[in-house]
Amino acid sequence: MTRFRFELTGGDPASGARLGRLHTAHGVVETPVFMPVGTLGTVKGLTPAQLEEIGASIILGNTYHLYLRPGMEVVSALGGLHKMAAWPHPILTDSGGYQVFSLRHRAKIEEHGVTFASHIDGTPHLLTPEDAIGIQETLGSDIMMAFDECPPAGAHTRVVTRAMERTSRWARRCIDARTREDNALFGIVQGGIDAELRRRSAADLTSLPFDGFALGGLSVGESRDATWASVGAAAPLLPADKPRYLMGVGTPEDLLVCTGLGVDMFDCVLPTRHARNARIMTADGDFNLRNARFRLDDRPLSPGCGCYACQHFSRGYLRHLHKANEVLFNTLASLHNVYYLLDLMRGARAAIAAGTFVDYQRELLARRAASAALTEDAPTA
Amino acid sequence: MTRFRFELTGGDPASGARLGRLHTAHGVVETPVFMPVGTLGTVKGLTPAQLEEIGASIILGNTYHLYLRPGMEVVSALGGLHKMAAWPHPILTDSGGYQVFSLRHRAKIEEHGVTFASHIDGTPHLLTPEDAIGIQETLGSDIMMAFDECPPAGAHTRVVTRAMERTSRWARRCIDARTREDNALFGIVQGGIDAELRRRSAADLTSLPFDGFALGGLSVGESRDATWASVGAAAPLLPADKPRYLMGVGTPEDLLVCTGLGVDMFDCVLPTRHARNARIMTADGDFNLRNARFRLDDRPLSPGCGCYACQHFSRGYLRHLHKANEVLFNTLASLHNVYYLLDLMRGARAAIAAGTFVDYQRELLARRAASAALTEDAPTA
Repeated sequence: MTRFRFELTGGDPASGARLGRLHTAHGVVETPVFMPVGTLGTVKGLTPAQLEEIGASIILGNTYHLYLRPGMEVVSALGGLHKMAAWPHPILTDSGGYQVFSLRHRAKIEEHGVTFASHIDGTPHLLTPEDAIGIQETLGSDIMMAFDECPPAGAHTRVVTRAMERTSRWARRCIDARTREDNALFGIVQGGIDAELRRRSAADLTSLPFDGFALGGLSVGESRDATWASVGAAAPLLPADKPRYLMGVGTPEDLLVCTGLGVDMFDCVLPTRHARNARIMTADGDFNLRNARFRLDDRPLSPGCGCYACQHFSRGYLRHLHKANEVLFNTLASLHNVYYLLDLMRGARAAIAAGTFVDYQRELLARRAASAALTEDAPTA
Repeated sequence: MTRFRFELTGGDPASGARLGRLHTAHGVVETPVFMPVGTLGTVKGLTPAQLEEIGASIILGNTYHLYLRPGMEVVSALGGLHKMAAWPHPILTDSGGYQVFSLRHRAKIEEHGVTFASHIDGTPHLLTPEDAIGIQETLGSDIMMAFDECPPAGAHTRVVTRAMERTSRWARRCIDARTREDNALFGIVQGGIDAELRRRSAADLTSLPFDGFALGGLSVGESRDATWASVGAAAPLLPADKPRYLMGVGTPEDLLVCTGLGVDMFDCVLPTRHARNARIMTADGDFNLRNARFRLDDRPLSPGCGCYACQHFSRGYLRHLHKANEVLFNTLASLHNVYYLLDLMRGARAAIAAGTFVDYQRELLARRAASAALTEDAPTA
């Protein structure tokens, strides 16, 4: 049995950026890493073969969504999440907490757990910390997340404090609920953007036997500066020898900045969601392919990009596919956007290894910023 | 410059089945062949790489659809259909006739050409035989089709006769309109299910310098027996040294029977359309994956099938993807259904070469028929 293990292999001398490896039962993940989100078992529009081709080494599955659909009976019958989704590589699952709390008006939070109404059919469900672990063990993910309470941005300090304290109590119940030893369990530091609450949360959670730590409750509506400041303050409070995961983040800027602040893992639905809306992510900024100026454009989405979509198709053709509602557009645009973020992180790892991460970060941030004015969404045709 | 050439390489001693090769500027196509339909440049849901992987050697593009969207200005700017759609292999385009006539109430047929209203925005357009050739030359297809008039099934003999005669006159105008010599132009035999009209149409069209001949106006609503009888009567009227194409057909049964009647080429939207409706095509009959009996089914769509979907995914998981409206379902189900028909024709070619086509045909038809009772669509969950 392969036990989960994190290996710190290097660091950038001029920033907090770290280089490492997650060793899991389903393979090794080089960090820092971007994890594409496979909500229902599939990263929307992409086959596992396409994900492998663009270099995804780990994907994320959503416990809340998989629990409701197809449900645990189906997942079990089909051999667990890896086998069912034909993804034999590492998988991280969230705990369902974030989704349940985003149904706030349909959820009732008690110390025991959360009662909520399914977003699909309104049926009532109870999710406890013990359930969240049980479900994740059935899914069979390589990295499980503790069940946390995630308050919205702008919540009163009293609310954030109560959520942070409950997250600490639930963290202990999650640890006690584990029955498997072959996968990892990460704790989630809460506390909003309040430095003192983050400090208390980190101090308590890092005293528990977690295999890694996440920063939760960020990028939920607060300003980008506040996100980055919170990450900068919280990351050093986490043990250096364990992986650090910034949940639900983010943009290319977030990835570049927060890698420099010492974060090892990221996930976000942004690249696939943007793709469905024809928003193309590139080193020179994002643009919306719906714009009429791309009608006759025979250039690839991002000149120089190595993805299949850029190697084979023009902006003009892809715009045509989007306008004609061809599902192939989703596939090709998602392939490109996810590739772009994976490639950004490949570059970050190489730069950290070469001791040039700060230059890499500065150059890419400047290039995106310089292009922002040019690439802002213009009125579409 | 490669000129189009058809090479007849063999035949089945016990049936009319033929073995051949289409030599085109974009490669060789082994016949008999099934051509997946790429209406707007893309076979719905599949990348060119996936089409290559399942062994598609030629695809079909729809002149009517491409003319309206993205339009010829875009196709030209993006380098023609092959380059635009990233399909460097052979392409056949229809003439637009079939689509225009299926808009019957929005189309006005005159000797000069057809005036119709776009199905997208209602704008008026005129399509003449000369236009149909000009558009196809701009698309750059390897095989162009003459502009024909295709009456619906059940039309009065007077209507069918008039359409057949007009098709003959338009055929001459199409030949005169050609300006390229590197691609092929096929004539389309009309005449509905009237043997005498078919004979007259074939006699006239085969006197013209076409590179191949299609049977049009079949599988438009008449009974299957009538289709097969018409093909059986018409195929021998076509020159043995030129390819024979049965347009818009069809089911596995159609392909098996009509290959035996001497047809070399088929096209149909069935496998991708069925896929979108969760109808799975297999050697043991078709079934609808929506059915609740597949909920926990861990078998592949078609045990023994060599396609990517069957090699990696279970019925239960694919059913889940369909119910959750994941576009990956379209991709995987289309991949399977198209693969099934391509594989059926690969088997047919091998059987013809081995002199065992009649056994192949009989065995597969019997297997599909035996399963029909079992696999009929049952009420779905």
